[in-house]
Amino acid sequence: MNSNKEIGTIGVLTSGGDAPGMNAAIRAVVRTALSKGLKVKGIMHGYAGLLNEEFIDMGMRSVSEIIQRGGTVLYTARCLEFKEMAGVIKAHEICEKNGIDGLVVIGGDGSFRGAQDLSNVGTPCIGIPGTIDNDIACSEYTIGYDTAMNTVVEMVDKLRDTANSHSRCSVVEVMGRRAGHIALNTGIACGAAVILVPEQDFDPERDLLARIRYAQECGKHHFIVMVAEGVGKAEEIAQIIRDNTGIDTRKTVLGHVQRGGSPTLRDRVVATQMGYHAVELLTQNIGNRVVAMKNGEIVDYEINEALSMKKGIETKLLEIAHCISI
Amino acid sequence: MNSNKEIGTIGVLTSGGDAPGMNAAIRAVVRTALSKGLKVKGIMHGYAGLLNEEFIDMGMRSVSEIIQRGGTVLYTARCLEFKEMAGVIKAHEICEKNGIDGLVVIGGDGSFRGAQDLSNVGTPCIGIPGTIDNDIACSEYTIGYDTAMNTVVEMVDKLRDTANSHSRCSVVEVMGRRAGHIALNTGIACGAAVILVPEQDFDPERDLLARIRYAQECGKHHFIVMVAEGVGKAEEIAQIIRDNTGIDTRKTVLGHVQRGGSPTLRDRVVATQMGYHAVELLTQNIGNRVVAMKNGEIVDYEINEALSMKKGIETKLLEIAHCISI
Amino acid sequence: MNSNKEIGTIGVLTSGGDAPGMNAAIRAVVRTALSKGLKVKGIMHGYAGLLNEEFIDMGMRSVSEIIQRGGTVLYTARCLEFKEMAGVIKAHEICEKNGIDGLVVIGGDGSFRGAQDLSNVGTPCIGIPGTIDNDIACSEYTIGYDTAMNTVVEMVDKLRDTANSHSRCSVVEVMGRRAGHIALNTGIACGAAVILVPEQDFDPERDLLARIRYAQECGKHHFIVMVAEGVGKAEEIAQIIRDNTGIDTRKTVLGHVQRGGSPTLRDRVVATQMGYHAVELLTQNIGNRVVAMKNGEIVDYEINEALSMKKGIETKLLEIAHCISI
Amino acid sequence: MNSNKEIGTIGVLTSGGDAPGMNAAIRAVVRTALSKGLKVKGIMHGYAGLLNEEFIDMGMRSVSEIIQRGGTVLYTARCLEFKEMAGVIKAHEICEKNGIDGLVVIGGDGSFRGAQDLSNVGTPCIGIPGTIDNDIACSEYTIGYDTAMNTVVEMVDKLRDTANSHSRCSVVEVMGRRAGHIALNTGIACGAAVILVPEQDFDPERDLLARIRYAQECGKHHFIVMVAEGVGKAEEIAQIIRDNTGIDTRKTVLGHVQRGGSPTLRDRVVATQMGYHAVELLTQNIGNRVVAMKNGEIVDYEINEALSMKKGIETKLLEIAHCISI
Repeated sequence: MNSNKEIGTIGVLTSGGDAPGMNAAIRAVVRTALSKGLKVKGIMHGYAGLLNEEFIDMGMRSVSEIIQRGGTVLYTARCLEFKEMAGVIKAHEICEKNGIDGLVVIGGDGSFRGAQDLSNVGTPCIGIPGTIDNDIACSEYTIGYDTAMNTVVEMVDKLRDTANSHSRCSVVEVMGRRAGHIALNTGIACGAAVILVPEQDFDPERDLLARIRYAQECGKHHFIVMVAEGVGKAEEIAQIIRDNTGIDTRKTVLGHVQRGGSPTLRDRVVATQMGYHAVELLTQNIGNRVVAMKNGEIVDYEINEALSMKKGIETKLLEIAHCISI
Repeated sequence: MNSNKEIGTIGVLTSGGDAPGMNAAIRAVVRTALSKGLKVKGIMHGYAGLLNEEFIDMGMRSVSEIIQRGGTVLYTARCLEFKEMAGVIKAHEICEKNGIDGLVVIGGDGSFRGAQDLSNVGTPCIGIPGTIDNDIACSEYTIGYDTAMNTVVEMVDKLRDTANSHSRCSVVEVMGRRAGHIALNTGIACGAAVILVPEQDFDPERDLLARIRYAQECGKHHFIVMVAEGVGKAEEIAQIIRDNTGIDTRKTVLGHVQRGGSPTLRDRVVATQMGYHAVELLTQNIGNRVVAMKNGEIVDYEINEALSMKKGIETKLLEIAHCISI
Repeated sequence: MNSNKEIGTIGVLTSGGDAPGMNAAIRAVVRTALSKGLKVKGIMHGYAGLLNEEFIDMGMRSVSEIIQRGGTVLYTARCLEFKEMAGVIKAHEICEKNGIDGLVVIGGDGSFRGAQDLSNVGTPCIGIPGTIDNDIACSEYTIGYDTAMNTVVEMVDKLRDTANSHSRCSVVEVMGRRAGHIALNTGIACGAAVILVPEQDFDPERDLLARIRYAQECGKHHFIVMVAEGVGKAEEIAQIIRDNTGIDTRKTVLGHVQRGGSPTLRDRVVATQMGYHAVELLTQNIGNRVVAMKNGEIVDYEINEALSMKKGIETKLLEIAHCISI
Repeated sequence: MNSNKEIGTIGVLTSGGDAPGMNAAIRAVVRTALSKGLKVKGIMHGYAGLLNEEFIDMGMRSVSEIIQRGGTVLYTARCLEFKEMAGVIKAHEICEKNGIDGLVVIGGDGSFRGAQDLSNVGTPCIGIPGTIDNDIACSEYTIGYDTAMNTVVEMVDKLRDTANSHSRCSVVEVMGRRAGHIALNTGIACGAAVILVPEQDFDPERDLLARIRYAQECGKHHFIVMVAEGVGKAEEIAQIIRDNTGIDTRKTVLGHVQRGGSPTLRDRVVATQMGYHAVELLTQNIGNRVVAMKNGEIVDYEINEALSMKKGIETKLLEIAHCISI
């Protein structure tokens, strides 16, 4: 979307699940905008806060000491009202009333649909992909992904100590309802004997038991099984192993710990780049786009196009995992 | 126990659940013994390995690069055979046959009972308290306790990010079937609104809901509830909160992650002190004792006396927790 | 000191070098006082801020989300004016004018001298030992000590990787101008071949070179030498090693990194206990005392007595270190 | 290079400075080779060990429990002899004698020169870029880079606590003699007010003092200055700041701590991909190439071409840094 209006004030909000690095993105949006002569309003509690006019004027120091903090200082919340056209129009009117000429929305696909709707009724919006699952098709990378995976690796490294000392099997359930990126990459990094992702059919004999038996034959006496939550419950997988191999097997569900923590370098740097890029687009009167990473570069797509893209599991990486994780 | 035999070779084993710092204790036992002119045999897989004669000759370098590693390089395993007198006598005969004049047993109360039995039939044993739960009555401190608690704190600090961003309640289930030490101390350290320990009756209205409501009135909008596993399942506690307050509540079961990880300074130093003390006792022909911490000092008790002691929850600390955790 | 005045409002400040856990102590002071019906004023920038009347009214939520943060939210600064009696009297008058009936001072020996002076002219003060060096004689433990030591251990564990890979010697200079507690304890925890503390004379041949040669004979091929800054510069020690052994030797000065970081469980819990105890004393109209840890318990001493105490290095621990660190 | 000989046994060595993730690469090389039916010899101490025939037969379990460890289990060492053609020819003869048909060399540019020479005399070699500095021109990413940067970020986050509490300036010297990648990226991630890299001229007034003064005007009261070691000594930079601004300024030299530590997820995954790719090339009788990352994909270049490439500092990132780091 391209309007002739000059941008004077922008808003920024976080929406959907929180992710480490969202604060780094907020900080980059605020400071880039201020240094380009714009004003910035922070919008609390996502689209709900927009509809409730929960605004904070943001200055250079409003975003001090947040780059290293997990979560989002602007909070996030669900908003059913914004899923209706009436809510979107109301949001646009509120933006107009408050002089908000453009909006940066940090969140996932659902948040981008809202950003598209709002762009279409006249408030240009730029989406920034922020979700730990890396399940946004248009972008190779989403803010929070690297931190979440490193959290998994740290925790599984601890589990390994005890699994090893007792010659046990540890079934670890990680986030990823429809996407196995976390499971695949952390599985490789943790030396998992088995990695189960929702993008592939799961045959217990072929994909689980045969692999464990082979690893046993190779002399392995403790095992990590990494399971994306979309494949099944850790306890069910553990029971299959116990019933069929007799190996002492424990399950661990990592849960919401994966969402938090101080962001890694990569999440801080990419969030900063994406926040900067979003403001650059808005200052050029460009809206209705999503910032993304492609081949390691920061690019942008029309939201509609972005939402229609597909991203599969890295098959080469799966092949490598099967070859070396014994 | 006091024999006239001169000690020439000692054995060392780990038994029961593994705990971070066990390797530091093994290292101290081995190096202290060697520097006092003794020989050392490492016994694999606890008492089971003793009965199977799984011995390794330990030199100065056998314990290099292990002080920083979680778990136990000697592994640990259950051993039903050793619970019978026949097994104990067989173990003693194996020690005699292999020239093992004394034994250091790193583990919990169950392991000490075995050490007592073996001492009584003629192989002097010294117990070292190693368990993350701090549930060994004779000692203020058990190896692994500090690491486990710091692991909990690190994970709950991450949970806090996301609980805060969404104005949620997080119910965290930590280890402690009969002992609430981990829950109490980590609850204080994490600013938990509620701490539930098995040493106290649990009245949902008085101990849980009233506290959350009071914290809400004080302006708190996200809550950590720390629950020792002995009190009940995290999911059940979470459901009580949801049903009675309407607060969006998530449970996290930290599980075996608490057992692993590189030991903290405190676990490394105390394990080293205890390992040194255990060998000092054996070189004086003293057996049938448990090393312990009392008033911050390293002491020792007869195993029988140690097993008969009681240790309650720190009531002053509970009082402080109630006063400040709002 | 004991006055008849009833305490209605207390102040809290941090003074001297910052230490992790100071925020946990501030939080405990504020919440304990509020829950006992007192009012609390936070005083910024230590005694300087007291003289400048930099006060903040503290409520329950003023100390939210600070228990996990390093440094001090009240900041700290030097104050020459307060070293003169005129400054102390002025501070007392400011307290009276602002209705501050008692003061909690978190800091080191220098800060306690000020607290004593101020107590003597009529504003009862309680000191809480906060310094990473553990160099406050009256207390076994000072806030920040455990975090600083764990930071050292984490960093030296990283150094070990590279020292090991290259068969090198690493000389590590840690904090401690007059006290070797950090060097001794971290030296044990990191498996240092040599530990040098300011409490003991340093003979390069006897204390450094002979030990490294002996460790070499035992088959060790990489070495950690832990040096308290009070003993000498890391570079000088490294040069002695290079000149006399030919071992490739690198120095690392850990510096101010040791002062920061999220406090460990122990620092958070002890800081909470000490903060609680300080307020309990003030509510009983008791001033001119320092909170301390003795035999693992929280106690208090008259400031004068506290300042006259002496604390030496743990000689038993040094003996253990020499025995096992090969 | 392309020979007709069928590959039956490969060797693997690490050379130059160690880097976290080298063990993950070794593991991937060993397991990929074994699963493709090859035999693997581990070569200790780099090219020196090759000339001394320090070989270890590697099986599936030889590389167990190393993916999470920093440093290199094969050790590394300098080798002057291998810089002469006579040494290279001797190395080739040793390979022939021991049936080593191909070699994987994990290291930096210097190591690749050796790999090229050895390829040219008949032993096909594949280089894998392993160095924390990311200063290998042909590849966007080098093994160890992500871990080193996250180590810097963790340490500077600690420094920030204390710099903030005292309103100080911290000058942090990070690795990078000729390359500012670490300084630039960590500077952004740590919110540095100033970032100094060797790729740009350094004018103290323009690049340092003006920026600090501007940040001060914006209300910032504590400052991080990130300096690549190639620009100058931290102490000199600190002195310039002290002399010209009066701000209390401390320097920290992070040193070899940056080289160590358990590798991050990214270093483990990329190292695994690169190790796999290297073996794939050797099994196709392809040598004299370097594995690299380009646009996020794993590719390979002829060594000669790789060594002739140039890589500059990310100028867009520098621009972003200047815009937002206030």
